[in-house]
Amino acid sequence: MQYVKIKDAIVEQIDSGMLMPGQKLPAERKLAESFDTTRVTLREALSLLEAEGRIYREDRRGWFISPESLRYDPTQTLNFTNMAIAQNRQPHTELLSAKGMLATKQAAELLSLPPFSDIYRVDRVRYLDKRPVVYVTNFIRTEMFPNLLDVDLNGASFTDIYREKFGVVYSKVKYRVSTTSLLGDIAQALRATSGTPAMVIERINYDQNDQLIDCTIEYWRHDAISIESVAQFEQ
Amino acid sequence: MQYVKIKDAIVEQIDSGMLMPGQKLPAERKLAESFDTTRVTLREALSLLEAEGRIYREDRRGWFISPESLRYDPTQTLNFTNMAIAQNRQPHTELLSAKGMLATKQAAELLSLPPFSDIYRVDRVRYLDKRPVVYVTNFIRTEMFPNLLDVDLNGASFTDIYREKFGVVYSKVKYRVSTTSLLGDIAQALRATSGTPAMVIERINYDQNDQLIDCTIEYWRHDAISIESVAQFEQ
Repeated sequence: MQYVKIKDAIVEQIDSGMLMPGQKLPAERKLAESFDTTRVTLREALSLLEAEGRIYREDRRGWFISPESLRYDPTQTLNFTNMAIAQNRQPHTELLSAKGMLATKQAAELLSLPPFSDIYRVDRVRYLDKRPVVYVTNFIRTEMFPNLLDVDLNGASFTDIYREKFGVVYSKVKYRVSTTSLLGDIAQALRATSGTPAMVIERINYDQNDQLIDCTIEYWRHDAISIESVAQFEQ
Repeated sequence: MQYVKIKDAIVEQIDSGMLMPGQKLPAERKLAESFDTTRVTLREALSLLEAEGRIYREDRRGWFISPESLRYDPTQTLNFTNMAIAQNRQPHTELLSAKGMLATKQAAELLSLPPFSDIYRVDRVRYLDKRPVVYVTNFIRTEMFPNLLDVDLNGASFTDIYREKFGVVYSKVKYRVSTTSLLGDIAQALRATSGTPAMVIERINYDQNDQLIDCTIEYWRHDAISIESVAQFEQ
């Protein structure tokens, strides 16, 4: 199939270093010309490259070569900033909103609370090397963190705030990984077109007394992350 | 956007039980008529539902409602059959091929072998409730398993064969989870159209003496699996 051949040709250019991470691909019209093919066939090749995480699209800006994915070990305490720095990436976190609210059905279920309980909701976008890669929503139980919203949450790590201001330490996580596509506000915050593939990581976090603290729902641009870990089996 | 409304309407019918897991959706032409929309808009809605794992397509047969995904804990020893039965699903494994060969570049890297080493390669398709959900390739180091190919591998579990015939016990795994799309032979074996989203799980397995035994590369239809686990952090 012709589009598979075009895909392979572009992969070869990436692997050989002729196309560098972050580099913009020529416009679709020009690419179609240089492969002597139609726009329809070219787009099939680009869709496959996107599905395989080799290229990504920014809304209205075009196609780019994907940087290496961030290695993410869900069995370790989550600290995006340290994880990025350890992998020679430049992290940045943007606080979108932090507010008190009544739990939605989804939040109540994740936090094991009765409907209409008070919770905090914090929305953030995290960047790697200036590219937005993950949209994070935190739902937080209020009773353990009185006046949490008075703390300056901008650029701060929840791990640090919980430990330093409230004596609460992340000690256990239940996590779930699945796939979906980006839509609406989340797609927009990640500069993605609607329908872009995404990896979803839901984490429910417990403290040193096995009390449920909070949960996070992370929507990752799927090419920006690879989950890697080691497990030892009991004999 | 109209296609999001159509998507939401179909999700509601699934959640309310009007559309049951495994049920076939009406033909695209009929669906477009009943939503009073175009084929193009309808297909956008179907693509989103596929991306979210709510429906799946079988090549030349049409769209179906996805069954519940299999919960898969990569930190546990892999035994597909037991995992499926524990979740009230009916497993079946089909052996496609088992042969000795010289290691490809990919296999040599995964098995930490020099290029052109002898290895075994075993390809299988696994089914849940008669639906093919995962294509598994095993690359196996030969020196620990002399004459492995003389064993009847049909329907057998490698965990059992290794332990019972060779005294080798899976003791540690390094795993990696990423996303891709199904192509070529693998797509065909899973009755998927080219480009269907997939979750890839690579596992490198070690025995009780921390020796590398084998590796598996699993291509899952992405709606058929959700990775779930619990991790405890060291303080």
